[in-house]
Amino acid sequence: MKVAIMFGSPSDTPVMEKAAQVLRELAVFYSAHILSAHRTPELLHKTVKELEDNGTEVIIAGAGLAAHLPGVIASLTTIPVIGVPINAGSLGGMDALLSMVQMPRPIPVAVVGVDNGANAAHLACEILALKYSDLRERLRAFRAAVKAEGEKNGEKVAL
Amino acid sequence: MKVAIMFGSPSDTPVMEKAAQVLRELAVFYSAHILSAHRTPELLHKTVKELEDNGTEVIIAGAGLAAHLPGVIASLTTIPVIGVPINAGSLGGMDALLSMVQMPRPIPVAVVGVDNGANAAHLACEILALKYSDLRERLRAFRAAVKAEGEKNGEKVAL
Amino acid sequence: MKVAIMFGSPSDTPVMEKAAQVLRELAVFYSAHILSAHRTPELLHKTVKELEDNGTEVIIAGAGLAAHLPGVIASLTTIPVIGVPINAGSLGGMDALLSMVQMPRPIPVAVVGVDNGANAAHLACEILALKYSDLRERLRAFRAAVKAEGEKNGEKVAL
Amino acid sequence: MKVAIMFGSPSDTPVMEKAAQVLRELAVFYSAHILSAHRTPELLHKTVKELEDNGTEVIIAGAGLAAHLPGVIASLTTIPVIGVPINAGSLGGMDALLSMVQMPRPIPVAVVGVDNGANAAHLACEILALKYSDLRERLRAFRAAVKAEGEKNGEKVAL
Amino acid sequence: MKVAIMFGSPSDTPVMEKAAQVLRELAVFYSAHILSAHRTPELLHKTVKELEDNGTEVIIAGAGLAAHLPGVIASLTTIPVIGVPINAGSLGGMDALLSMVQMPRPIPVAVVGVDNGANAAHLACEILALKYSDLRERLRAFRAAVKAEGEKNGEKVAL
Amino acid sequence: MKVAIMFGSPSDTPVMEKAAQVLRELAVFYSAHILSAHRTPELLHKTVKELEDNGTEVIIAGAGLAAHLPGVIASLTTIPVIGVPINAGSLGGMDALLSMVQMPRPIPVAVVGVDNGANAAHLACEILALKYSDLRERLRAFRAAVKAEGEKNGEKVAL
Amino acid sequence: MKVAIMFGSPSDTPVMEKAAQVLRELAVFYSAHILSAHRTPELLHKTVKELEDNGTEVIIAGAGLAAHLPGVIASLTTIPVIGVPINAGSLGGMDALLSMVQMPRPIPVAVVGVDNGANAAHLACEILALKYSDLRERLRAFRAAVKAEGEKNGEKVAL
Amino acid sequence: MKVAIMFGSPSDTPVMEKAAQVLRELAVFYSAHILSAHRTPELLHKTVKELEDNGTEVIIAGAGLAAHLPGVIASLTTIPVIGVPINAGSLGGMDALLSMVQMPRPIPVAVVGVDNGANAAHLACEILALKYSDLRERLRAFRAAVKAEGEKNGEKVAL
Repeated sequence: MKVAIMFGSPSDTPVMEKAAQVLRELAVFYSAHILSAHRTPELLHKTVKELEDNGTEVIIAGAGLAAHLPGVIASLTTIPVIGVPINAGSLGGMDALLSMVQMPRPIPVAVVGVDNGANAAHLACEILALKYSDLRERLRAFRAAVKAEGEKNGEKVAL
Repeated sequence: MKVAIMFGSPSDTPVMEKAAQVLRELAVFYSAHILSAHRTPELLHKTVKELEDNGTEVIIAGAGLAAHLPGVIASLTTIPVIGVPINAGSLGGMDALLSMVQMPRPIPVAVVGVDNGANAAHLACEILALKYSDLRERLRAFRAAVKAEGEKNGEKVAL
Repeated sequence: MKVAIMFGSPSDTPVMEKAAQVLRELAVFYSAHILSAHRTPELLHKTVKELEDNGTEVIIAGAGLAAHLPGVIASLTTIPVIGVPINAGSLGGMDALLSMVQMPRPIPVAVVGVDNGANAAHLACEILALKYSDLRERLRAFRAAVKAEGEKNGEKVAL
Repeated sequence: MKVAIMFGSPSDTPVMEKAAQVLRELAVFYSAHILSAHRTPELLHKTVKELEDNGTEVIIAGAGLAAHLPGVIASLTTIPVIGVPINAGSLGGMDALLSMVQMPRPIPVAVVGVDNGANAAHLACEILALKYSDLRERLRAFRAAVKAEGEKNGEKVAL
Repeated sequence: MKVAIMFGSPSDTPVMEKAAQVLRELAVFYSAHILSAHRTPELLHKTVKELEDNGTEVIIAGAGLAAHLPGVIASLTTIPVIGVPINAGSLGGMDALLSMVQMPRPIPVAVVGVDNGANAAHLACEILALKYSDLRERLRAFRAAVKAEGEKNGEKVAL
Repeated sequence: MKVAIMFGSPSDTPVMEKAAQVLRELAVFYSAHILSAHRTPELLHKTVKELEDNGTEVIIAGAGLAAHLPGVIASLTTIPVIGVPINAGSLGGMDALLSMVQMPRPIPVAVVGVDNGANAAHLACEILALKYSDLRERLRAFRAAVKAEGEKNGEKVAL
Repeated sequence: MKVAIMFGSPSDTPVMEKAAQVLRELAVFYSAHILSAHRTPELLHKTVKELEDNGTEVIIAGAGLAAHLPGVIASLTTIPVIGVPINAGSLGGMDALLSMVQMPRPIPVAVVGVDNGANAAHLACEILALKYSDLRERLRAFRAAVKAEGEKNGEKVAL
Repeated sequence: MKVAIMFGSPSDTPVMEKAAQVLRELAVFYSAHILSAHRTPELLHKTVKELEDNGTEVIIAGAGLAAHLPGVIASLTTIPVIGVPINAGSLGGMDALLSMVQMPRPIPVAVVGVDNGANAAHLACEILALKYSDLRERLRAFRAAVKAEGEKNGEKVAL
């Protein structure tokens, strides 16, 4: 398991599933955990400890509203933490974005776009590719396929 | 010590001093702690535990930017936590305000205005007054003095 | 009746019902009032007076748009007032949030998240628990149950 | 006294002085009052009553932060109330603007721009001009002078 | 015809109809005009001239997006202009609100809440009541009825 | 082909189709391209080069979210680039608007309203009309027709 | 005179001077006008008419706050109008940006960044270059010089 | 050279110097480059190619305003790109934040807080620590020192 996907509520599943799907496409093993910085702090501490012990190398954490989860995880480990702000409630996800991105030094969270679980997984793969050159190849192939499809779209458009 | 004032950085001192000043005026004992949810999590846990043990009844927590401090404290105790969003950085304190106020249930933070340390202390006193009727009297006297001064101002104005 | 739930319009009922539900779960007696700072100011004044006389110890006030209700109540009493900004209209509740939270000293409102009636009730209970130690126990049990359920969720997740 | 200028804090004086200056230029009598919706509610009620009795025809009310003053005044009278949102604190006056403008029906506040005391006075004069045709003439003359000066500026510009 | 209701697009009709309905309830005659500051500027100029000539005393102008209509009208007359920001497009009406409220001196627009056609009409009536004391009576009766209904609601609520 | 319409995703089609429709109405030839600044950068570079070679005189580029497309195009050519911010995601298009409009000098993008493909086409025609006087005539006729229709609407309104 | 630079207030001069400076560097003749959509509407109409008659081909209009100037100009002519939102007041220029960019169809304004007078001039030159090929060459030379300077900077940096 | 620090303008130096300082403290070699996505695109492409060839493993890119730099870099390589939004201009850095964070899939940028160069460097080190276990140790030691200092601060505070 190279990546851990963590999120606070079952309602976050559709966004985080997009991360899982990308990881599967890029053949990266992951574990998934529903956990809350505030409701289950002990379980969170214990899980982060276990992730460190079992060699997890990147953590993706999604949260909405006050969205403290990625920041609290980041304070417990030096494993890189990727934050996915989730649009929950009525403020378009601006609350979660600011709560994640404005972390104090020296505890960064690597924030991606609102509800953009897919990009969180791509970022995780780019990070892992530092160490796993085969993943670098798969990432490049993925981008090449996206490019090829984009170029095909470009040919077909008619307005 | 009825109230604990907690904040994350020495740079928050001017805002939190306004809370301390109100508490002194209303003769409420308080302790003060510089602590970080992310930089000194063990000290934070230990301190909150001690506050519970020594009978602290309200916690005022100030923070800027991602401003997780009040929410993390609130997750560790059922003592009411009052959050003071601090205008640090370039977003006018909107980041801290949203990070504090949008807490998930059942872990509330009682948020007051940006940089409004004084109102945090007044709220703390209103809460304590449930139990300490002499403080209720001092609060009423304080408000009466504010009103008297306001009414005097009202007489003097000339534009 | 320890808590009074006040709100300005029948359309706020779904949000405030979430507060009522939490209070019932925690066995806290409450009264409910539809009142407007602007449309029924005399009734508001009279009701706040009655609440003070009948020993109400915390007031929860929900409002949308200009959302003056909690602030006006707070100016009439030293009972702690919890404000629930309600998302009414097209601005996502940002109007109500700012109108409540930016109160001038020494008249605080304890603001919780947009539409978060449940957290208002939890905060009310934390405040009441200063005086009623059995409520402190129920609050802790509630949180323990939430934690237990969260920990069970954590086990089951599969992406 | 046709117009009453009301504001909550001596620090609002520079903005409200701009209103007073315009009224003097247009020869409209006004009274000025420092009053607070929350700190001196009885004085506010009493003053609004007096204004109704002495024939005041328009009220200009400036406030910053939660900025309830114009809305509370509007709830006490059917005299038209003009609100001036004041940039106090760190949110650029957006808090005061939303708190004033989003009033519930049927209690409107006529809101002008942030810190724009001058426009509040012009609006007051336009309203009074319904009844006082000489003021209509002075308003037209004022605008004609502004236009003449603007046209002169237009001639001189060199970049 | 005491009031003119002006708006830029047939899609604004539901909001402006709320203004018309209040005027009918308060027995105030009005005319209605679909006009655009930018698409039909000559018709706008001509219409404003006619309104001045026929004795119209207040103008209510609704607009969305860039929402220049009320400001342009205000520049053409000293009749008071009430602006209703309309939520058109994807920015919640914040665009229209700022475009209307931030008018330069000495050309004010009296802005009410987003989509709040009803409050625009109430403000118009408050202004007209300076001159028409019977309208003042009807306004007071309207508010009294609203208060009576609000007080009845207050009795019935059960959560 | 005088105008090129470029956009990043098939989901942007409805907005960009509004631009195409206006160009057809004004008898301006255009080409259409689905291209991404980030997914198909080589195709983008090649296409911009071809547009320069084939004499395209204005480029309309629509994009949502980070919305770099118009800015990247503008950096590759001195052909004027019109940007259409598209409301994709949960932030109402504010993300795309700011990403387009805040371009550094000396690489401007000419930004129109969120989702306003039609105005992008009108702006393109105004630019082309510098050189093609017949298009100026068609533009004037279009506006005259809009005015005539607006004036007809103005006659019919009844509230 | 190919370009007209128009703005509403002498206080806008520093921003608009940046546009003038770029035009001088690129040897484009311009005229400058201080004019207001609201304070000097007749002068504005007359000036736009004169600009059309004297062959002005692009208009740059800067404004702050409600910032109607570019939109009103655009409604009077089919000459392309470039809008420069100016940061005046306390809202960072967001008011002017939204007031300019959200224009209704078919009356576009080509908006550039807040206070970015230089980019307005570059955009004007890109537009004029459709017709004046020597200006295209000067624009390309300007960009080449910027690039050369940028590449030299890139060599020197040391952190 | 493990890390490349890239930014668009000499005025960004103070923010990016904070990143360089952290890297020096943690003994991580870095190169620095002033480059622009829009002004020096060829140099940018060439430099990213060279960084890939010379084994650079993380890129930190700072930018203000439209802030396309990190996104454009990310589109050219699968090396992880960390974006630092810089507060340039009048919008508090919100423009740069949104332009960076809302990148389309599959091209992520890992965004840290506004002006937070230090956190960008810490994130870079966390990423590199996947591969360099000695850096993991230095990171842990750094955090331990921060914690120790924080705990010492906690002891000293007096309000």
